[in-house]
Amino acid sequence: MKKAENFGEWYNEIVELANLTDKRYSVKGMNVWTPYGWKIMLLIDGYIRKYFDETGHGEVCFPLLIPETEFSKEKEHIKGFDEEVFWVTHAGLNPLDVRLLLRPTSETAMYSLFSIWIRSHADLPLKVYQLVNVFRYETKQTRAFIRVREIHFFESHTCHATAEDAEAQIREDLEILERFAKHLCLPYRLLKRTEWDKFPGADYTIGIDIMLPSGRSLQIGSIHQYLENFSRPYNIKYEDEKGDHKYVHQTTFGMSERLVGAVVAVHGDDKGIFVPPDIAPFQAVIVPIPAKGLVGSVNEESSKLSKELLNAGIRVHLDLRDLRPGNKFYDWELKGVPLRLELGPRDIEKKVVTAARRDDGKKVQLSRDCIAEEVMNLLDTISNNLLARAEAELKNNIIDATSLEDLPDKMIRVGWCGSEECGREIEVSTGRSILGTPIDKEADTATKCVVCGKETDSIVYISRQL
Amino acid sequence: MKKAENFGEWYNEIVELANLTDKRYSVKGMNVWTPYGWKIMLLIDGYIRKYFDETGHGEVCFPLLIPETEFSKEKEHIKGFDEEVFWVTHAGLNPLDVRLLLRPTSETAMYSLFSIWIRSHADLPLKVYQLVNVFRYETKQTRAFIRVREIHFFESHTCHATAEDAEAQIREDLEILERFAKHLCLPYRLLKRTEWDKFPGADYTIGIDIMLPSGRSLQIGSIHQYLENFSRPYNIKYEDEKGDHKYVHQTTFGMSERLVGAVVAVHGDDKGIFVPPDIAPFQAVIVPIPAKGLVGSVNEESSKLSKELLNAGIRVHLDLRDLRPGNKFYDWELKGVPLRLELGPRDIEKKVVTAARRDDGKKVQLSRDCIAEEVMNLLDTISNNLLARAEAELKNNIIDATSLEDLPDKMIRVGWCGSEECGREIEVSTGRSILGTPIDKEADTATKCVVCGKETDSIVYISRQL
Repeated sequence: MKKAENFGEWYNEIVELANLTDKRYSVKGMNVWTPYGWKIMLLIDGYIRKYFDETGHGEVCFPLLIPETEFSKEKEHIKGFDEEVFWVTHAGLNPLDVRLLLRPTSETAMYSLFSIWIRSHADLPLKVYQLVNVFRYETKQTRAFIRVREIHFFESHTCHATAEDAEAQIREDLEILERFAKHLCLPYRLLKRTEWDKFPGADYTIGIDIMLPSGRSLQIGSIHQYLENFSRPYNIKYEDEKGDHKYVHQTTFGMSERLVGAVVAVHGDDKGIFVPPDIAPFQAVIVPIPAKGLVGSVNEESSKLSKELLNAGIRVHLDLRDLRPGNKFYDWELKGVPLRLELGPRDIEKKVVTAARRDDGKKVQLSRDCIAEEVMNLLDTISNNLLARAEAELKNNIIDATSLEDLPDKMIRVGWCGSEECGREIEVSTGRSILGTPIDKEADTATKCVVCGKETDSIVYISRQL
Repeated sequence: MKKAENFGEWYNEIVELANLTDKRYSVKGMNVWTPYGWKIMLLIDGYIRKYFDETGHGEVCFPLLIPETEFSKEKEHIKGFDEEVFWVTHAGLNPLDVRLLLRPTSETAMYSLFSIWIRSHADLPLKVYQLVNVFRYETKQTRAFIRVREIHFFESHTCHATAEDAEAQIREDLEILERFAKHLCLPYRLLKRTEWDKFPGADYTIGIDIMLPSGRSLQIGSIHQYLENFSRPYNIKYEDEKGDHKYVHQTTFGMSERLVGAVVAVHGDDKGIFVPPDIAPFQAVIVPIPAKGLVGSVNEESSKLSKELLNAGIRVHLDLRDLRPGNKFYDWELKGVPLRLELGPRDIEKKVVTAARRDDGKKVQLSRDCIAEEVMNLLDTISNNLLARAEAELKNNIIDATSLEDLPDKMIRVGWCGSEECGREIEVSTGRSILGTPIDKEADTATKCVVCGKETDSIVYISRQL
């Protein structure tokens, strides 16, 4: 099972071998979150909560079911979704008067309430988020975490008095994202989607893209500027200081369980997955190395070590299974535990703990006396190394091109004049998608449109998308 | 708005005034969790996670949608639910080959997977739980948290080698419940339901019942012994030490957002709701008491106080709104914050903080120097007082009767011979339900059946149920 040889097969196999998910549920594209995978997701959710709470967002939970009548108020939005929603048509033994759909996203569930909640400028900004599951009837081939039909995700929704306030919110979202992504050691690019690829109903969409080892890009989330596109049909108005009634300006930000897929894809290797320390269910695992006649005392010392680390707030697991150490090593490497702590009679005698890093395989001896501190430092080192490695790999996967021929499977930057005609030509002739324009101007971009040759300082990223 | 005069109206009003929920969503019985209410629910969920994790349960998340073919394998179960499930019949623009239902509970989603997961006795016990929303098409009048159509709940599911192990699991569940309910300051009774009132598919059901001020009882959860009733149709077998293949024995335990309703109903009063300290989004609120020319310094001292308490792990909120203190007092009493901390120039001068308790309205002065410790002690005192008060009230609402005439609106204990005939007669002639037999023998129960007069040492609780 080689990641470099066949990424797709490696991925499909590794998520099950590491026991992150079970794909044998009887509905296609709806998988079971097993305890190990779900714990990773919950730790990710914990950081979402932390950063949204810190920035004054309230956590809410809106109903799953949306009446068809509410859903169809924003015309672009329903056009974007009507082929991929699940419909509830009956309750008990009777048909429903109005069909209900399972939320594919919650704009149309929330915005009627927002129009009641918001009365005056004093009610703004309104900032809420929720962590829920959404449903999309994917017709493409499904893939665990990356393309599923029941999707665990978060969505934040905000309302503002002015377009400037809404723009400031998007800057706040980008700061949240930057802090958040560090915990996953995931580098990404922020690319403003084309007009024909933006979210249904959005004024503009920023895609959050990463690169997969297969040479395809993966969107792991998006941020949308709606302006008044939803507040008009849903009638969300406020009274300003002068007594005038105005429509609010809205934004949203969302990311999904694809984050778990991204972590697997970016950090995993031929030995298994690799879970970054901040989101690892077990940051370290203790494997006692028994010696004849000393099994009891080694286990006892291991148990003491475990308690000490747990008390220091480190998520540690003591593996006392009746297996050879080598089998345990193999198992925890497969599951991507960042640090393995070995404790044998010689370690105990020398007052050390032998630590094996999952990232580079190196072994170091840590002082037993200040073990908690040393473990924490080593976990930090591993996080930093993981992020640096992923950043180098991403940079390596971005190249510039001045023609559309013989493009490698990477993210490719080309000049684009901005016309839809040239844009469509780029996509059709390369079989790739325009991901969009970097939202921060990247250096030295004075160039020519790769299709029409017109001078432009606008470049776009193109790639095959998963 | 008097709780004692019209409990139903008081309840419906108070949950919205305290801003726990918004009932104006466009689907009946599906309400919006607002940030304050949802935070209470999340804190409750936190204790569920704590106790289940501590007892070796793994948290999972199974798909929402269950194929009709899977659902109908256990005949009693589908009979119990077929009038109250929501059906998904279409995806996108097309009808589905097999209809899918929204889980009303997850036995039929989980058990096919359990039959794959479990191979040998070494895989047992299997103990999992999940915190999800379930869906039931209630036809009775809906009521926030208490009778809704989208229900936030937890469900634990366990598989065991023997019936004895399954019984031991139920004892563990009861211990979890006992520890858990203390955080909500909720006393309850454990009553084994009658044969005709048990969960569809269960061997027996223990109902967890509380009393409402209206004189009706409310089931806040239940624990079920399934024995082999599900493992046979779902073919969940294990190989024992001798190589024989046997069916597992199963149990479940579940409670829902009714817990929030119960907290409102039991602890609330005419001033508002009362949230027990352990599940309070704000355990204390700081209200600065301004004095002319000293507003700045009072706010500054309040801010210091707030930081100190937050650092000590106390959930405190500093209320700096431009309102009179009296208005703030009113607001936080309505929202049920256990402790109000007032800080004015005289408090600052005397190095004290004035604390007003929400439970008895008494004011005490706390030392500013050890404020965190004093606040924590006072919160404990409040919790204990709240629980003692609720326990006294529950006892007060349980009476013994030897005839079925002129029964008051309470929980009533009567002798019952155990025959279905007499049981049905009790229910029909009183218009009440038999809640069941206390699972721990209550003292001095040698008595006679209230219907046939036969000697029996079995008593049952009866009441009107909400």
